[in-house]
Amino acid sequence: MSDNTNGKIVEKKITPRSEDYSQWYLDVVNAADLAENAPVRGCMIIKPYGYSIWEHTKKILDQKFKETGVSNAYFPLFIPERLLNKEKEHVEGFSPEIAVVTHAGGKKLEEPLVVRPTSETIMYDSFSKWIQSYRDLPILINQWSNIVRWEMRPRLFLRTTEFLWQEGHTVHETHEEADERARQMLEIYRDVAESVMAIPVFGGVKSEAEKFAGALHTYTIEAMMQDGKALQFATSHNLGQNFSKAFDVSFLDREGDKKYGWQTSWGLSTRAIGGLIMTHSDDKGLVVPPKLAPVQVVITTIGGEDNKEVIEKAHEIEKRLKEADVRTLIDKRDLRPGEKFYEWEKKGVPIRLELGMKDIAEDSVVLVRRDNGEKEKKPLSNDLYKDIVSLLEEIQKNLYDRALAYKKEKTKFVDTWKDFVRAIEDGNFVHAHWCGEKEVEAQIKSETKATVRYIPFDQKEEEGKCIKTGKPSSGRVIFAKAY
Amino acid sequence: MSDNTNGKIVEKKITPRSEDYSQWYLDVVNAADLAENAPVRGCMIIKPYGYSIWEHTKKILDQKFKETGVSNAYFPLFIPERLLNKEKEHVEGFSPEIAVVTHAGGKKLEEPLVVRPTSETIMYDSFSKWIQSYRDLPILINQWSNIVRWEMRPRLFLRTTEFLWQEGHTVHETHEEADERARQMLEIYRDVAESVMAIPVFGGVKSEAEKFAGALHTYTIEAMMQDGKALQFATSHNLGQNFSKAFDVSFLDREGDKKYGWQTSWGLSTRAIGGLIMTHSDDKGLVVPPKLAPVQVVITTIGGEDNKEVIEKAHEIEKRLKEADVRTLIDKRDLRPGEKFYEWEKKGVPIRLELGMKDIAEDSVVLVRRDNGEKEKKPLSNDLYKDIVSLLEEIQKNLYDRALAYKKEKTKFVDTWKDFVRAIEDGNFVHAHWCGEKEVEAQIKSETKATVRYIPFDQKEEEGKCIKTGKPSSGRVIFAKAY
Repeated sequence: MSDNTNGKIVEKKITPRSEDYSQWYLDVVNAADLAENAPVRGCMIIKPYGYSIWEHTKKILDQKFKETGVSNAYFPLFIPERLLNKEKEHVEGFSPEIAVVTHAGGKKLEEPLVVRPTSETIMYDSFSKWIQSYRDLPILINQWSNIVRWEMRPRLFLRTTEFLWQEGHTVHETHEEADERARQMLEIYRDVAESVMAIPVFGGVKSEAEKFAGALHTYTIEAMMQDGKALQFATSHNLGQNFSKAFDVSFLDREGDKKYGWQTSWGLSTRAIGGLIMTHSDDKGLVVPPKLAPVQVVITTIGGEDNKEVIEKAHEIEKRLKEADVRTLIDKRDLRPGEKFYEWEKKGVPIRLELGMKDIAEDSVVLVRRDNGEKEKKPLSNDLYKDIVSLLEEIQKNLYDRALAYKKEKTKFVDTWKDFVRAIEDGNFVHAHWCGEKEVEAQIKSETKATVRYIPFDQKEEEGKCIKTGKPSSGRVIFAKAY
Repeated sequence: MSDNTNGKIVEKKITPRSEDYSQWYLDVVNAADLAENAPVRGCMIIKPYGYSIWEHTKKILDQKFKETGVSNAYFPLFIPERLLNKEKEHVEGFSPEIAVVTHAGGKKLEEPLVVRPTSETIMYDSFSKWIQSYRDLPILINQWSNIVRWEMRPRLFLRTTEFLWQEGHTVHETHEEADERARQMLEIYRDVAESVMAIPVFGGVKSEAEKFAGALHTYTIEAMMQDGKALQFATSHNLGQNFSKAFDVSFLDREGDKKYGWQTSWGLSTRAIGGLIMTHSDDKGLVVPPKLAPVQVVITTIGGEDNKEVIEKAHEIEKRLKEADVRTLIDKRDLRPGEKFYEWEKKGVPIRLELGMKDIAEDSVVLVRRDNGEKEKKPLSNDLYKDIVSLLEEIQKNLYDRALAYKKEKTKFVDTWKDFVRAIEDGNFVHAHWCGEKEVEAQIKSETKATVRYIPFDQKEEEGKCIKTGKPSSGRVIFAKAY
């Protein structure tokens, strides 16, 4: 706009990863038109292309939750302060991050309202009324909602003051059943991470210092970013009876005695989209696995909109691909081919078909893969459509394999402090012995920025010495720097 | 729970409509387990059964929006006060209802943040940066989100401080295109109201007094509740250039001149679920049209869970119905049959199948329709499944026809003030002449509580005299009391 230079969109080059990894990430988000900063600090605007990736993720997760008997519901955005204060560890964990409504309807409120930083307290207040007897159990509820946690160092998708997520909350008769449910939901997250988002993850238990405020155990799956840092992809909490006692979530058991419920909560947020971007993208821009790609195949026509023959052929190809359930888009804009190619590359569309008069004369099309840049001339035959469907699967697999190979390369086993410090500095997931003491964990963090990411579910019994204190340890835990 | 009488769920009788319509509505919501009041006044908890109806509605609407080229996105919950203040009429309309965050992250904020009462201001601030030239138009964005408007007289679904909705926002090159879009989206709402929710609606233009704060024209569809009151089902606004001028949503046109965009916004909220409940339900409880019913067929077994033969047969029927895409549930709980029947009646399940040993011996099942209570013995043959599918369609149609007949009965044409007052008192949609003056509209409202619901799109030219002032009028408008 002539008088609005502020708003002018400047074509920005993407900073190479090797030069500045953080800037590269922001450049990719910007170049692919995924999201942007909002006028309120720390909040983000998720643009249609970015939101579409979230929508696909939601749809798949939601179905998997429902298959295990979970129902969706909706609880209020506002939590009265007195409810938040009921579970001591919980309120201590969250109070530095909360936003508070003090005025509404033109008046000062008698009791301030907290904008939900998570919904344990507001939900369990209801659960205590919903549950009378063991016959009312299990309660299996999920909610898709927005969450507010005041963020000091915001970053699009990865850490935002407001984010979108789902939070599941369950109540069970026994500890065993609750623990099983917490692990079952983590397994769904693992499945979605690996088979849908093509992100290899490791699962385990959080240390006491890193667990959720108010949980008995926090189970986590962690993904490795291309700078070797860990991203907590999703967590599932065995809450024990901490909240059920605070909120009187109790029931009459089969013998008619009052018992407190055993609870879980579990969540995945738009932060996972940040992990997706950082796992696969490259110096040319975004790379999205086919299963989540808003557009799976783009047909870029060469030669302008007047070129009837090319446009018609493009529509024919589009029709066939849509019949095969491939999300397809034709870009027939009157731009230079290079410009169009570049745009879809930045947006990470898995397959690009280039179609011009020359191709039509040869009854072929040029196919370009986004994951490895391979270019191939393909005949316009029935096989093309089948080939594209298998190629999308191959690309999905290739992205996973590539990320897995990288993760293996950046996973180190060390036994001395010196090796530990170097391995962390170099950006690795480091398997090391630790004595299990909170203070030692804190000291390691302050010296190296590394935290215990998880204690593996399948931790091998192995005698060793804590890399920091030399005290005995019976198994390795995984350290890394984290987002 | 033994020590928690507060939480005890008391089986409550449903108050008959004739006795107390408002209480009847709340009783139905409660008996069907749709929603309940939250600890924060005016907020609601949407329980799984109620949320499922909303989910079905969302899914259908979302698909229809997308078919017209609309994409989903997400904008922040918080709006800086300075943005809200940019459009004068808009801020005046909303300021009495807003909730304000003044403290966050342990500090007082420099600028208070408004919890979104609608998102025109936060979105158009972005649109002004997104749009440079006519090539960037149209912008067609939708958002599913929560909204906060401080509510003085809250009522589950119908008026709540926080509610869920979708809000669509578009920008166009010309006034004509924007107006067409606003009407197109209203037409989608009409279609969903009538063909999915089985609610007959009337469409038209809002009067100046009733239009959206900041709009040029508001288009509305209104439904009639069983007490003859109107419920605004959904609205679509032609915003003209009011916001585009305030937010500099401008573009360079085909001649290279700066022009302001022509905008629309349109929304449907969980309030529509309130309308759904009030349109179809009866003194026995909820009635839900089959297309939105969380459960379309319930199979209630007679004789307890040990009765293997009955349970097996129930599963067989369930399997066949699920194959026919019928949402089916088996209730095999060991309760008295009457108790089970009553529960599913209250929940408005369209078809109930009663199955016991006696039925199996006769190779039949008892089928009961929720809409009219008809009971029929049906042979357990292949035809049963086909019949059920057609019967669901018939029930859907019957609910619509019944609501339409009621609406016709309660629609009156009057020409004198005396008749007008009586027709409004009796709970009618009243077609009457009005001089078009705002002050007269306000006076009519203060005397009768009736407002101009809409000026029909297909208003007939007809000379007449204003029922209040006797001044000339060229067509009738529709008055009613409203929710």
